[in-house]
Amino acid sequence: MDVFEALKTRRAVKKFDPSHKMSTDEIKTLLEHVILSPTSYNQQNWRFIFTTEQEIKNKISIAAKDQPQPKDGSLVIVLCADLDAWNKDPTRYWMHHPPERRELVKKSLEVKYSNNPQNIRDEAIRSCSIAAQSIMLAAKHMNLDSCPMIGFDYEKLAEIIKLPENHIIALMVVIGKRIGEPMSRGGQLPLDEVAFENSF
Amino acid sequence: MDVFEALKTRRAVKKFDPSHKMSTDEIKTLLEHVILSPTSYNQQNWRFIFTTEQEIKNKISIAAKDQPQPKDGSLVIVLCADLDAWNKDPTRYWMHHPPERRELVKKSLEVKYSNNPQNIRDEAIRSCSIAAQSIMLAAKHMNLDSCPMIGFDYEKLAEIIKLPENHIIALMVVIGKRIGEPMSRGGQLPLDEVAFENSF
Repeated sequence: MDVFEALKTRRAVKKFDPSHKMSTDEIKTLLEHVILSPTSYNQQNWRFIFTTEQEIKNKISIAAKDQPQPKDGSLVIVLCADLDAWNKDPTRYWMHHPPERRELVKKSLEVKYSNNPQNIRDEAIRSCSIAAQSIMLAAKHMNLDSCPMIGFDYEKLAEIIKLPENHIIALMVVIGKRIGEPMSRGGQLPLDEVAFENSF
Repeated sequence: MDVFEALKTRRAVKKFDPSHKMSTDEIKTLLEHVILSPTSYNQQNWRFIFTTEQEIKNKISIAAKDQPQPKDGSLVIVLCADLDAWNKDPTRYWMHHPPERRELVKKSLEVKYSNNPQNIRDEAIRSCSIAAQSIMLAAKHMNLDSCPMIGFDYEKLAEIIKLPENHIIALMVVIGKRIGEPMSRGGQLPLDEVAFENSF
């Protein structure tokens, strides 16, 4: 599916066919494309927890305040970030480049994130959110639908996925085969209320 | 261009053809697709400042520590967010839905963001970052390339775009016609280092 069509037809779908399954190959193909999304300095600070297991999906639905998307969707992806990624052997993020560039990136990461928890957190949310849109559009391409979710009990979800220390959950995306038509769009603000030429 | 191809061929391009121009119609088409990206509760907290004016692009390049992408790119989009969007007549975000739903959304927004600056900031970064990936993939679809940027002097850029109070800049994306091939990818971590089944 072309990008414009995917952008136009992507909707936050609430009703998924609980009998639909995704294959391991489909999930791998999806994720292999998603990790080509950009991260600052290619730090790849995202960590994707994915599950198709009914028991776990049920638990996630409970953590998501009984919303049905996780339990009925085919695949749940919890997008997390490792807040220490910038400092974990960062020269490997530029493994295909010469040592000078790799050292330069390491130094730049130190300057940006060392002793700056807000920059680290912003970067976690940024990387995961960019990847989330890749997931949602890739789902459309695979003739599936998706639902991005932030409405969940954070501590409960963290426990289910065994979130390690110094990691955060940025958001969750459910993928599946939709049942029926999604509800109509809430309504976009006119372009001239959100886009401004040259300055505010 | 199909979504998978766009994900695979999208790169952070550093060298743009300074003579390439985008038309007003092309920019409008791009933005009209981008604002179909999801935001939590459809709050549309993003604000896009876009410019094609050489003088402003030059200033933005200076603010971006003399990186050439803004001045040489055809279109610069600074993705900002209004931190008060959740509280600005929010029933209009569901204008096409019945009053009960609109009131429910208003209440939900209050619960989530009232007196919670971290939630508000996270949501600002999240909405803008999701939209940024829409921009980058839409650019590929339009036979253009892009470069996401966070390396800039925040205060200088805020001054150039006249950033209002209670707004933040989340990131910037430059779009243009690339010159030559982009440098090779830094190197993706193996999938099994960033994606985990069921739990960490």
